[in-house]
Amino acid sequence: MTRPATPLLDRVAGPADLRGMSDGDLARLSDELRAEVISAVSETGGHLGSSLGVVELTVAIHAVFNTPFDKLIWDVGHQCYPHKVITGRRDRIRTLRQKDGLSGFTKRAESEFDPFGAAHSSTSISAGLGFAVGRDMGQATGDAIAVIGDGSISAGMAYEAMNNAGHEGRRLFVILNDNEMSIDPPVGAMSRYLSGLYASPQGAALERMAEGFEAALPGPFREGARRARQLVTGVAGGGTLFEELGFTYVGPVDGHDMAQLLPVLRAAHARATGPVLIHCCTVKGKGYAPAESSADKYHGVAKFDVVSGAQKKAKANAPSYTSVFAKALTQAAESDPRIVAVTAAMPSGTGLSKVAERFPARIFDVGIAEQHGVTFAAGMAAAGLRPFCAIYSTFLQRGYDQVVHDVALQGLPVRFAIDRAGLVGADGATHAGAFDIGYLANLPGFTVMAAGDEAELMHMVATAAEYDAGPIAFRYPRGEGAGVDLPERGTPLEIGRGRVLREGTGVALLSFGAHLGECQAAAEELAAQGISATVADARFAKPLDTDLIAQLARHHEALITVEQGASGGFGALVLHHLAETGQLDTGLKIRTMMLPDRFIDQASPAEMYAAAGLTARDIAAKAIEALGAVPLARGARA
Amino acid sequence: MTRPATPLLDRVAGPADLRGMSDGDLARLSDELRAEVISAVSETGGHLGSSLGVVELTVAIHAVFNTPFDKLIWDVGHQCYPHKVITGRRDRIRTLRQKDGLSGFTKRAESEFDPFGAAHSSTSISAGLGFAVGRDMGQATGDAIAVIGDGSISAGMAYEAMNNAGHEGRRLFVILNDNEMSIDPPVGAMSRYLSGLYASPQGAALERMAEGFEAALPGPFREGARRARQLVTGVAGGGTLFEELGFTYVGPVDGHDMAQLLPVLRAAHARATGPVLIHCCTVKGKGYAPAESSADKYHGVAKFDVVSGAQKKAKANAPSYTSVFAKALTQAAESDPRIVAVTAAMPSGTGLSKVAERFPARIFDVGIAEQHGVTFAAGMAAAGLRPFCAIYSTFLQRGYDQVVHDVALQGLPVRFAIDRAGLVGADGATHAGAFDIGYLANLPGFTVMAAGDEAELMHMVATAAEYDAGPIAFRYPRGEGAGVDLPERGTPLEIGRGRVLREGTGVALLSFGAHLGECQAAAEELAAQGISATVADARFAKPLDTDLIAQLARHHEALITVEQGASGGFGALVLHHLAETGQLDTGLKIRTMMLPDRFIDQASPAEMYAAAGLTARDIAAKAIEALGAVPLARGARA
Repeated sequence: MTRPATPLLDRVAGPADLRGMSDGDLARLSDELRAEVISAVSETGGHLGSSLGVVELTVAIHAVFNTPFDKLIWDVGHQCYPHKVITGRRDRIRTLRQKDGLSGFTKRAESEFDPFGAAHSSTSISAGLGFAVGRDMGQATGDAIAVIGDGSISAGMAYEAMNNAGHEGRRLFVILNDNEMSIDPPVGAMSRYLSGLYASPQGAALERMAEGFEAALPGPFREGARRARQLVTGVAGGGTLFEELGFTYVGPVDGHDMAQLLPVLRAAHARATGPVLIHCCTVKGKGYAPAESSADKYHGVAKFDVVSGAQKKAKANAPSYTSVFAKALTQAAESDPRIVAVTAAMPSGTGLSKVAERFPARIFDVGIAEQHGVTFAAGMAAAGLRPFCAIYSTFLQRGYDQVVHDVALQGLPVRFAIDRAGLVGADGATHAGAFDIGYLANLPGFTVMAAGDEAELMHMVATAAEYDAGPIAFRYPRGEGAGVDLPERGTPLEIGRGRVLREGTGVALLSFGAHLGECQAAAEELAAQGISATVADARFAKPLDTDLIAQLARHHEALITVEQGASGGFGALVLHHLAETGQLDTGLKIRTMMLPDRFIDQASPAEMYAAAGLTARDIAAKAIEALGAVPLARGARA
Repeated sequence: MTRPATPLLDRVAGPADLRGMSDGDLARLSDELRAEVISAVSETGGHLGSSLGVVELTVAIHAVFNTPFDKLIWDVGHQCYPHKVITGRRDRIRTLRQKDGLSGFTKRAESEFDPFGAAHSSTSISAGLGFAVGRDMGQATGDAIAVIGDGSISAGMAYEAMNNAGHEGRRLFVILNDNEMSIDPPVGAMSRYLSGLYASPQGAALERMAEGFEAALPGPFREGARRARQLVTGVAGGGTLFEELGFTYVGPVDGHDMAQLLPVLRAAHARATGPVLIHCCTVKGKGYAPAESSADKYHGVAKFDVVSGAQKKAKANAPSYTSVFAKALTQAAESDPRIVAVTAAMPSGTGLSKVAERFPARIFDVGIAEQHGVTFAAGMAAAGLRPFCAIYSTFLQRGYDQVVHDVALQGLPVRFAIDRAGLVGADGATHAGAFDIGYLANLPGFTVMAAGDEAELMHMVATAAEYDAGPIAFRYPRGEGAGVDLPERGTPLEIGRGRVLREGTGVALLSFGAHLGECQAAAEELAAQGISATVADARFAKPLDTDLIAQLARHHEALITVEQGASGGFGALVLHHLAETGQLDTGLKIRTMMLPDRFIDQASPAEMYAAAGLTARDIAAKAIEALGAVPLARGARA
C-alpha cells in the first residue's frame, strides 16, 4: 500500500518539535497529518470522521500549549488519532483498535500525553477542572485544556461541570469542537442554540471573538476573523449562554484555519485568568471527500480503499442482534399504539432509526442524556404508554440512579433493551457491557432476561411489550446472531421459566444469555471425553427458575453457571438462592463462570472472551475440574 | 396541643373544592394551610422550611389546574406537606415520616394526586415531559406541571430535560421555585445567574413577565406585577438562558402573593402552546418566624414547640458516624496537604462543612452534580491530589458511570466516603443505601470497606488517606455510633484483612459493616441456647480476606454472612469465592443475610431492619436454622 509523503511529519518525534515551526509549516504539517490518519485508518478501520475534523486543532493546541505538562483532554477520545500520531505513537498507529495495539480512545496507560482517558462522553470539563485545582494547589501540572464536541456538551454532566467551573473561576480552557454532528445528527435545544450562534445575520463577530483578549490579538487574527465570518455566513452576538455560566466566550472561529486558530489560542493562553470557552467550527470528515460527502461523515468505518473510499465490510452470516431487535420492536409497535421508544443519541446504533422509518413520532432521541432518557421513559410509563428504553449496557450506567429511583422504586413498566451486553470488541474495556446484570437484577421488582440467540431476542421483545407488572430488561450482545431460524414473530415467554436444550447426566451447564452457543459447544467437547452434559438456558436472572435450578442441582454432580457479565450477577443470584434454601448444605460442585475481575483490552470479541477464560474449552475444562476428572489438554486455548 | 382554627381548610376535601373559591378565600386558605402544616410538623418533625415556602404555590396550582387529571410533579417532593393536606391526606398528616404513616415525599402508591414520586432531585421535568407525550398520544392525562427548586434545576439531569423539552416544543409547565437555598446555600454559576435575574436594576419586569400572555392578562395581574417588582428590587431583562433552551420565560413573580400567582398561572394555562417556565420567588420557611430567622430555614426539623420554635432533639449516646468522619478527615488533612474533598450540595450532611471550617480552600461543593463531582475528583487524583468524594450511598448512584469509567477503569485513587449506607429511617426507601456494596465491589480494582463501628471508621479514613494504589471506598451508616472508645487518631488497616472479635466453635457470623453489633448480640443469644458462635468483622468486601473465610468455613458447621445491603454484594462475593475454590463441593451450611428483595418503607432504622429480617434475633434464628437445631421462640421479633 502506498503511504503518503510526509516530510514535515517525519521530523516530528513529539509535540515539542511543533513549537519551533512557523505558522505556515504548522498548516502544512496538518495536511500531512491528515493524509497519515486517512492512510492508517484505511488499514485498521475506526473513528475516522471525528479525527479528520480536529487535525488543525490538534496541531494548534500542541503548538501553543506545553503538553504534556499542560493537560490536553479529548472528550470521548475517539478523535484522538492525529493526537496519537504526533505524540510518539506514530509507529503503532496502524495497530489502532487491534488486539495488543493502540486503544481507539485516549488512555492514561498508553502515554503521558493522555492525562485523562475517555470513551464515554462529556467528562472532559470535569477532569480539566480537577487538573486546574491540582495546578493551583501546587501539583506539577500546567494548564488544562478540554476539547469537547457539540453533542457531548449537551449532556447534563458537561453542564454541571461548566456550572461548577464558572463558579470556581479558575483558569481553564474549554474548546467547543462544533461540527453539528455527533454520531447521529444532534438534537435538542442546545444544538439549535449553537447553530444560531453562527447562523444569525446580525452578529458582531469581531467583538465577541476578541472579548477579553482584544488587546493581545496580533494582526493576522483580524484577517482570520474576517474569513471566519465569511465562512460561517454571519455570526450572532451570542455566546451568552456560556457567559451566563461564567465563561469568557471566544468565537466562533474556523477550526480548519491555522491563521485563526493559532492567534486565538495564543491570545487565550497569554491572557486568560478564568474559564474560557473557545468555539471552533469544524467539519466532520474534513479533507477527505468520501467522508465529507457521506451521511455519517465516516464516523466509524471499516478498513477502506483510500482512493475510492469503499469500505471492506465483512459479509455477515446472520442478522445482527440489533437488526432483529429493530424488526421485533417494529412488529410490536404495529399492533400496539402505546409502544414508544427512547434513545440517547444512538438511533442508528440501537436500531431505533429503523423503527422510526415506520413510526417517526413514537421514537424519541433525547440526545446524550441517559439520566433524562430513563426518567422520561418512566413518565411515559406512568402516563399509560409502553416505553422501551434502548440504551447500551455501558451507557445505561449513566442513568443508574434513575433506574433505581424513578423506575424500580415506583415499579413502573419501563422496558430496557440493553444492546452491547458483554464484551464488544474494538471499542475495548470502556464500552464493555459488564455490570448490568448485577446492577439491575439486584433491584427489587425488576425482571431481567438475556437472549440465548436472536430468536430468543424476538421472544423477549414480545415478552417485554406485553409485560406491565413492573420494570423489565433484556440484554443481548453486539454483532451477529447465532444463525438460528427466526420465527415470523416473537411469542411472549413465561416469566421466570428457563428451558433445557440438551439432557445429560454428569454436569449441568446453566447459561444466561448469548454464551449459550459456547455452552453447547462445551457439551460437545465433554461428550467427546465421555462426560454427559445438560445444557440449560436460564432466560431469566430474575425471577430465577428455581425449579429448573433445583432439578439441575439434584440430578447432576456439578453445576456451572455461565454469563457474559461480572461478579454479583446471575451466578451470584443462583448461589444466594441455593445457600438460602440449604441446597449447598450437603455439597454441590458449583462454579460460576463470568467476566474476570479485571478490565479486558480491545480485540475481537472472541479474542476478548478467550482472554476472559470464557471459551467453550474453558467451560468444558471448568466442568472437568469441578467433577474432579482429568483436565483436558489445553493446546487449543488462545 | 392546641390546633389552629382552620374554618376554610376544614371545608376542603380535595382540590376540586378550591376551584369554586374566590381569590381572596384562596389567600386566606393559604394562611390556614400554613398554620396546619406548622402544627403537624411540630408533632412529627420533617422538611418544614421547603413546605412553608410553597403554601401559596400549592393552593394556586391546584386552584388553576385540574389535578389529578393534570399531573402536578413536585421535584424532590419534600415540599409536599401542604399538597398532602389538601389532597385528601389531612387526616394522616400527623403520621408523616412515621412507621406505617405518610411518606415524607410524594409517592404514587399513596395518592392519585402524586402521579410521579420523588425524593432524589431534578427528575420532575423529565417525568413531566413523559406525561406530556402521553397526553399528546391520547392517554387519559392532562397537563403536566413540574415544580422545581433553584438547587434542583442546577443539576445536569434538569438541564438535559429542559434541552429535550425545548426541542420537543410540547405544552409543559415548569415552575421554578426560587428560594436561593436548597439544603445548604446553593453554589455554582447557575445560582448566580438566577440571582442576577431579579437583582439587576435595569429590568423590564412587565414585559418579561407578560411575554406571550400579555393579551390574556387580567387587570389585577398588572397590579401584582408592580408589587412583585417592588418586592424583588428590580428585575433583569433576563430569562434568556431558559429562552435559549426553548422555553417561554415568565417572571419573576412573588410566589407568596396570590394576586400575582393566580393570574400568571391562569394566563399560562389559557395560552401556552409550548414549554413555559414560570419563575417564582419564594422564601424558605415563609410565615414562621423561627424558621425564617434560622440559618437552615428549618430545612429538616425534629419535633418542636410551635410558640418558641425550640426543637426537641433526642440526646445522642455516642458521636454520629458523620461527625467521626469529619474529625478523622480533618486530622488527615492536617498532616497531608494533598487531601481535598468533594460534596454534591451536602456540606453539612456529609460533615465536610466541619472540615471546611479548618480547610475552606480544600473542600469543594460542586452543587447537585454527582456526575461532575466524581469525575472532578478523578481529575484531581490524576493531578496528584488525594481526593475524598463524600456522597451518600443513594446519591452516588447518580455518579455510577463516572465511578466505573473515570475512576475504576483508570485505577485512580479516589476515596469514596459513603455515608447513609444501609437503611436510613424517616427518609424511607428512596434514601436507602442498599446497592453500593455490589455496584462498587464488582468493579475491577476497587477496594471496598465498611465500618463495624465508629472507631473502625477512623481507621478506614486513615487507610483511605494513604492508599494510592487505586479507588477505595468505605461505607458507614446514618446516625450515632456504637459508643465504643475512639482512638486519638486512626491507624491504617492492612488491606484485605478482617478480624475476629469472638471465638466460638459451632457457627461463624461474618459481618461486613455496622451490623457487627447485631452479630455480637446474636452470638449472645446463641450462647444462651448453648450454641458457640464466632463473630468476625470482614472489614473488606474487596479484596476478601480469603484466609479468614477459609478458616471460618473449615472450623464451623455453619457460616452466616451479614451485611446492610442488597443481594449481589458482600455475601455474593464470599459465595463466588467459596464456589470457585471448591469449598462448597462437600457441603457448607452457608447463609447470606442481607436486605430483602423489596423496598422497605420509612420507620426508625431499627424498625426497618426488623422489617428486613435483620435483627440480632433473626441472625441467631438463621444460625439455628442452618445448624438444623430447634428454632428460637419468635415472640420478641417485631
